[in-house]
Amino acid sequence: MERLNIFKIGGNVIDDADLLDQFLQDLCKVDGKKLLVHGGGKIATKMASSLGIETEMREGRRITTDEMIDVVLMTYGGLVNKKIVARIQSLGTNAIGLTGADGDVIRSDKRPVQNGVDFGWVGDPKAVNVEWLIELITETLPVMAPLTHDGNGHMLNTNADTIANTLAIALSKKFRCELNYCFELDGVLKDINDPDSLIKELTQNNYASYRNEGVISNGMIPKLDNAFNAISSGVERVRIIHHKKILKLKDATFDGFTNIH
Amino acid sequence: MERLNIFKIGGNVIDDADLLDQFLQDLCKVDGKKLLVHGGGKIATKMASSLGIETEMREGRRITTDEMIDVVLMTYGGLVNKKIVARIQSLGTNAIGLTGADGDVIRSDKRPVQNGVDFGWVGDPKAVNVEWLIELITETLPVMAPLTHDGNGHMLNTNADTIANTLAIALSKKFRCELNYCFELDGVLKDINDPDSLIKELTQNNYASYRNEGVISNGMIPKLDNAFNAISSGVERVRIIHHKKILKLKDATFDGFTNIH
Repeated sequence: MERLNIFKIGGNVIDDADLLDQFLQDLCKVDGKKLLVHGGGKIATKMASSLGIETEMREGRRITTDEMIDVVLMTYGGLVNKKIVARIQSLGTNAIGLTGADGDVIRSDKRPVQNGVDFGWVGDPKAVNVEWLIELITETLPVMAPLTHDGNGHMLNTNADTIANTLAIALSKKFRCELNYCFELDGVLKDINDPDSLIKELTQNNYASYRNEGVISNGMIPKLDNAFNAISSGVERVRIIHHKKILKLKDATFDGFTNIH
Repeated sequence: MERLNIFKIGGNVIDDADLLDQFLQDLCKVDGKKLLVHGGGKIATKMASSLGIETEMREGRRITTDEMIDVVLMTYGGLVNKKIVARIQSLGTNAIGLTGADGDVIRSDKRPVQNGVDFGWVGDPKAVNVEWLIELITETLPVMAPLTHDGNGHMLNTNADTIANTLAIALSKKFRCELNYCFELDGVLKDINDPDSLIKELTQNNYASYRNEGVISNGMIPKLDNAFNAISSGVERVRIIHHKKILKLKDATFDGFTNIH
């Protein structure tokens, strides 16, 4: 099977034009088949604020009211996605911007009210149009915004990590998928203040130990649970890696990231 | 060759949720291969105003400053395009939303300053990725926003009529293209206040006469010049038709529109 590298970038890269530009230049130099998933960053909150719309977060997630879904469609689906696609085109790589609605790529269930919290127009993926995505990957570099649809005419705000995970699992039928969560640190650190404390290898075994010892912080646990779920669902490997270091992966001896397998 | 119906809808449909919904329902019932091009409507002007950005028009076209290109990316590329795609999906038709940057579908030249007027980030199409569009049309219903890119990393605001025309001409190599400009009247009227004054057939010959007699108003002339340009460039026919009447085209005897050939 052919290799597919899925990269996910989040707010820290998207909110900084120079970091984003450097990342996209590096991305275009990565060999082989690729897919990019981007988050939203602070732009939706800023835009909402400019429009007099209040942002409410619960458990780190945006409550997506009728007004807020329009804001995230505009900012994630319009502004961020199209600027990324235009920049990648200028670097000589043929990209195509997508939300889950485009080509029915990801269909979601609107999240039901849980423990009294109504997240609004938020979706949890339930189906991937794998065949069509394979065609797109064969011809282009798909750039996924963190948006899906419910099949009933509504767009849904969807977590970008979840989208990256969902796509990696679905595409593992066809590709040897490598899922790269890119962020502003080298990977999972034993001590957040000590860059030398990088955990280079995480397996189910030492993950359980680290968790029991309290070495891995609460914020990382859902991300890592998802990563291990991806591994057990056919994804070849998951990396947590600095967004400035993706090109170093060309060097097989490079190990300055967290490798999950 | 297979037939392809290209439909263009403008502001009057997009600005009215009920009209838009009825149009999309009808569109999904049109047989055969289809492509939709949508304009922007008043939403960009409203959004700009909400954000304290002034809208300046020249010759009926929007001056697209640095701030305004972000507004049109958000509204046309994000809000309008994705809502249309999600609605079409809910009607059981697989749509894919596109700007010219996506799959490099339409590349434009940034319009140079002309007669002292700088339109800003406005683009005039110069190249269509026909092969890739054919693949998309074969599998989905493409929904084009009035946005293109310059190949140098910039998105460009582009007239929706021009996009429809450009695509119809380019796709005529592969399809028998029928280009349908849908708007709020039955077609070209001799007297704008008399719905019974519809011109049902327009050819180069009677168009010249109507123009000389001053029957066809100035506002219609650029649209019709484009239409005849399409015809002479391989497009099989151009219709100017009421947006509520596209399903009547199934009846071969229906002639309540302006047929340009």
